[in-house]
Order: sequence, then C-alpha cells, then structure tokens
Amino acid sequence: MSGKGAPAFSLSNDAAIYSPEQNKELIFTKDTLVAGVHFFENDDPFLVAQKSLRVNLSDLASMGAQPLGYLLSLSLPKKNFDIEKWLAAFSAGLKQDQERYNWKLWGGDTVSTSGPVTISVTAIGQTDKGVNISRSGAKVGDDIYVSGTLGDAAGGLVVLQDDLDRTLYDELINRYYLPEPRLKLGRALTEIITSMMDVSDGLMGDISHICENSGVGAILNLEKIPSSQVFGNLLATNKAYSRLAWSGGDDYELLFTAPKNKNAVIKNLSDELGIKLTKIGEITKALQIKLLDDDGSEITQTKKGFRHF
Amino acid sequence: MSGKGAPAFSLSNDAAIYSPEQNKELIFTKDTLVAGVHFFENDDPFLVAQKSLRVNLSDLASMGAQPLGYLLSLSLPKKNFDIEKWLAAFSAGLKQDQERYNWKLWGGDTVSTSGPVTISVTAIGQTDKGVNISRSGAKVGDDIYVSGTLGDAAGGLVVLQDDLDRTLYDELINRYYLPEPRLKLGRALTEIITSMMDVSDGLMGDISHICENSGVGAILNLEKIPSSQVFGNLLATNKAYSRLAWSGGDDYELLFTAPKNKNAVIKNLSDELGIKLTKIGEITKALQIKLLDDDGSEITQTKKGFRHF
Repeated sequence: MSGKGAPAFSLSNDAAIYSPEQNKELIFTKDTLVAGVHFFENDDPFLVAQKSLRVNLSDLASMGAQPLGYLLSLSLPKKNFDIEKWLAAFSAGLKQDQERYNWKLWGGDTVSTSGPVTISVTAIGQTDKGVNISRSGAKVGDDIYVSGTLGDAAGGLVVLQDDLDRTLYDELINRYYLPEPRLKLGRALTEIITSMMDVSDGLMGDISHICENSGVGAILNLEKIPSSQVFGNLLATNKAYSRLAWSGGDDYELLFTAPKNKNAVIKNLSDELGIKLTKIGEITKALQIKLLDDDGSEITQTKKGFRHF
Repeated sequence: MSGKGAPAFSLSNDAAIYSPEQNKELIFTKDTLVAGVHFFENDDPFLVAQKSLRVNLSDLASMGAQPLGYLLSLSLPKKNFDIEKWLAAFSAGLKQDQERYNWKLWGGDTVSTSGPVTISVTAIGQTDKGVNISRSGAKVGDDIYVSGTLGDAAGGLVVLQDDLDRTLYDELINRYYLPEPRLKLGRALTEIITSMMDVSDGLMGDISHICENSGVGAILNLEKIPSSQVFGNLLATNKAYSRLAWSGGDDYELLFTAPKNKNAVIKNLSDELGIKLTKIGEITKALQIKLLDDDGSEITQTKKGFRHF
C-alpha cells in the first residue's frame, strides 16, 4: 500500500492474508461514513468508531454471516484537527467493539484530506456454503417481519437536532449512536427466511428494495410496527414524529419475509434469543408498497416522501 | 448497505458473495485516493479511475496475487460538481481496466461529502496456499533488485507542477497517471524472492520498510538505479531532479531481494517477460540504509529527506 499514513495510528499497511475455511462462502460489504453526513463533526470519536463497525456488522448480519475481519480506510483533516486526540479515542472505540464482536482489523490505510473525516470500512464475513441469503426471494403470501423496535434511532436524531430534553430520551440517542447488529438472529434466520435485509434507510425504503428485487409488492400495517416505550413518549409530544417509525433509518433491525407456516418457528426463535420479532405485513402480487394507517386508510409513497390519502 | 448512493451510478449496495477455491489464500489490500492529495482536482476522472485500480493492483502484484475482485467506495461532493459527467468518465475508466486486468467490481457504496472526491478501493486477490510473500525475509548478502525504471512517475509530476514542456515528457506524465501493475512478474517472483514490495513511496522509503521488517540494512548504488531515456532528458535540464529516482514515489515497480544464486533465474525471467530487472544493491548486516553516489560517496537519509556527505 502507499503508506501515506498517520504514524500515530497502528494501521498496518501490509496486505492481509486469509486462508478460507472449507465449505464456507465469504461475504463482503462496504459502508462509508462521512462527518457532517453520517455523523456530527463533533461526535465522540469513540462512538463514531463503534457506529462505523456496527453498520457494517449489521450488513453482515443481514446476510446471515459470521464476522471475520475488516479493512479500514481513514481520511483525516490536516487543519484545525487534533489528529492524535481523535485517533486515541477512535482506536479505543474500535478496540472495544473488536473484542465485543470478536472481529479483527486486517489492515487499511490512513490518508489526509482537505475535507471532513471519512471512514470507509470493508467488512468480511462467512457463511456455510449454500446458505440462503437473498433480497430477491420474497413470495406472494409471505409474512413480513421486523426485529426489535423501529423509529428509535431516528427519534434519537430528532432529539439531538431539535434540541429536546436529552435526559428524557437517552435510550433513543443511544440507539442512534450505537446500533446493535443482529448477528446471532441473522444467522439463525437463514434457515427460515425467503428474503432479508437490515433497516438502514427506513422501513419503507428497505421493504421497497426487497419487493423490487423479488418482483412483488407489500402491504404493511402501521399499527403493527413495533415501537419502544420511549419512542411512544416522544410521539406524545408531537404526532408528526410517527413517520420516523416507517421512514426513519439507522435502526439496523432485520427486516425479513417468511412463509406463513414458519410462524411458530419464528415465535420460538424470538423466545430463545429474547428478541422481539413482529409480523408487520404481507407480500402481495400487486407491485405496490402500501402502508395502512390505524384506521385502514392508506399512507402512500410519493417522490418527496409519503402522504396521507 | 446503507445505500445513501448516487442513483446514476450502478454500484450495487448488495453484499458480495464469494466461494473461495480450494488451496488458495486470499489477499486483501486497501488504498484510498483523495483529490488534492493523491491526484489533481481537475484530473480526467477516466484516468483517476484507472490509477485508483492500478495502485491497488500493484499491491496485489507485490504479494504475488492474482486479482479476483474489488469493492469501491466513492465520496463525492454535492456542490459545484457535475456528478453525472464525472461518474460517466470515471465508470468508463473502471470498465476498461476491469477488462484489461480481468478484475471485477464486487460492490461498494457511494456517499456525498462536503470535501474533495475520495476513492477507497479494497482489492481482493488470491495466491496458492503457502506461497512465499513477505516483507520480512530479506537476508544478509541478498541482492536487491528493482523492475523497470525509477523516477519516471515523479518526473511526470514535476513536469506537471513546474509547468515544463509536456510534449517532451509525455512518457513520464503517462507513467504518473497510469502505473503498470507488475502482476505477472509478481506471481513469477514468489518462487525466487526473500522479500518484495512495490515502489509507491520512493525507493529509499520502501527499501527501509523491507529492512526494518527483516532486521537488516542495505547498500544501494545510485548509478545502478535504472532510469528511462526520457527521465535522462529531464535530468539534463536540472541535475537536482536526480533525487526523483530514489525518493520519488508512484512508479509502482517491484522492489525485491533474492539470494545471489538466483541471479541466472532472475535474468531468465527478465528475458521471458521482457521486463528489465536490475540489481541495485545488497542487503547488509549493519542496520543502515546507505545510498552510494556515483563516486562512492554516501548520500544519507535525514529527517527532512536526504543529503550528501
């Protein structure tokens, strides 16, 4: 590698060598985070490091993959930026999550930029050969499920942006900063699902990906979308925030489809892992994504977002 | 992946799946290029694309690896930037080199930035299991070799920066923009060398890496460093440019060490591939890197570069 690195950081510029195990498939994903776009410029680098890893781990989770290693590219400003201090906190954040998820830094590079901090992670994971991981397998009549609760991360972002009382919404802010990649769940689901992805762009956008790739449509029920108590509290202050549950991103829950006869298996898995798995709708033949309001009226996607009919 | 992408570009946000072949090792490297640091803001995106791939291919070459695929992360400015036009040229450049090197785009992401264009490539290649690739195997008494000619790329950069007559130095400018990754040579050398890397930071910096990792020193002979006819022409205009041959980067030639008894094998390989392979020095026990001038006097590395004694 070209090695134009910040010497304070221990990123080795050597190439990484990996001997694949037999009967495994390797999964590669890549997610880049830019200061001012994907996180705030003054966010704690410790948390930024962990978010950078976790959004990529979530990609692996959505492929039912076990994390193996990652490569990291850092573009860091030269001016008005305390590189040593930033890297100390960032590295500590990486280290903690590497241990938490048993994930290894395989290499990477550090370069300087006239722009904002840019963090590019390439994630490498593995699955057993032949495991079913797809965004294109949803079938008409399949149930649509989501793990955990939706809207929390987007709610946390709103709390930060609208300068609400943070002490009331700690839980939401934490979910915004530190998503929990559903690795165990993702692996377990590979034997059950017909399609799966993680909710990173918002429920409606992500179910659209599955439907487009599968050549199907979907009906979702707003009242079934699972939300947390704290998100309910936020909603009570302003009903307009309800859109966050279906259009807000960054929850990194798993969205998946499964045949109806898998209902009991999914219930068992939910109990076993202690993770809420909620049926929120159904795959349809009609090539539309419909979101039904509590009273049965349709909330419809437009180019500029969603509107009520 | 989070899919905050430029829709005009066909970068799939899906994860890539790869089934490794038996008895192979996978090689991962990552190199990031930032506009204003690693290339000029107004450089032709077609050439920038190819340079981005080739510096990574050169990393694979230095590991004796065969290219398999790559992941690409693009951070692109939103303001004062014609994203469609830029991407059209950039994609065309990628496409041509993908075919040339039989290398596949496995995936990646595109995000927006308030900063300069930032291109991060993760390169994946493979070698046979157990192949000897190392920066740490140089032994006292080994010969030090370099492929091709050195100084050309740095010479090309000088021509651009000092606004010299470009028509006289086309060849140098081309080498600056379009390095030739020594893939075939790298693979062939794995059976011969004790250590190898590519010359990306400049000969002296790169031989230092090998020596540090191997716990040895080196003596290099300035007069033996191979240079091109056109570089000689540049040198004739200003003797100060001679430093480019040993301190200039971006040539992406292979630098390697080999036992003396491999001399004939290396000569044969050079003839077979039609690539000049030149012995430029020797590995020493003394932990210093010495560069000897034509008259035998020593040019010594200082913190700020190199100076004559």
